[in-house]
Amino acid sequence: MKARVHVMPKPGVLDPQGKAVAQALASLGFKGVGEVRQGKVIDLELTETDPALARDAVDQMCRKLLANTVVESYGIELDT
Amino acid sequence: MKARVHVMPKPGVLDPQGKAVAQALASLGFKGVGEVRQGKVIDLELTETDPALARDAVDQMCRKLLANTVVESYGIELDT
Repeated sequence: MKARVHVMPKPGVLDPQGKAVAQALASLGFKGVGEVRQGKVIDLELTETDPALARDAVDQMCRKLLANTVVESYGIELDT
Repeated sequence: MKARVHVMPKPGVLDPQGKAVAQALASLGFKGVGEVRQGKVIDLELTETDPALARDAVDQMCRKLLANTVVESYGIELDT
C-alpha cells in the first residue's frame, strides 16, 4: 500500500519559503498570485495491507518524525 | 482559485531526504516501510478564474521556477 503525507505550515505560522516563492513569481512577471504556502510531501511504500492499521501507523510516523505539530499540520492519503 | 503543485524527484534520481526519512523511521522502530520519496508541495492562491488559463499559468510557473525538470517531475491540482 502507498501512503502520501502532506506537511504544511499551520495557518498564521510564518512561511518564509512560501513568501520567497511568491516574490520570485512576481519578479518573473507572473501576475494574480496571492498567498503561497510551501510544505513537504512524503510518499511511503508500506507492506501493511489493512487501511485502518496503515493509517494508524502513518499517523504515528507523522507525530514522531514527519511533522512538527506545534507549527505544522499534516494530512494522510492512502492509495489502496 | 487555489492550485496545489507537487514536485517530486523523478524515478531513478537519488533522493537523500527520502532515504534519511526511511532510515529515521526504521531507527524509531517502524517496520514495513519500503521506499520513501520526499518532495515539495506548493499551495497557490490565484486570482485567475478560468481553469484552463490557471493551469497554463501554473504550468509555466513550474517550468520557470518551482521544479527543476531535469531531475524533478511535477503535478498540478486545481481546486475550482
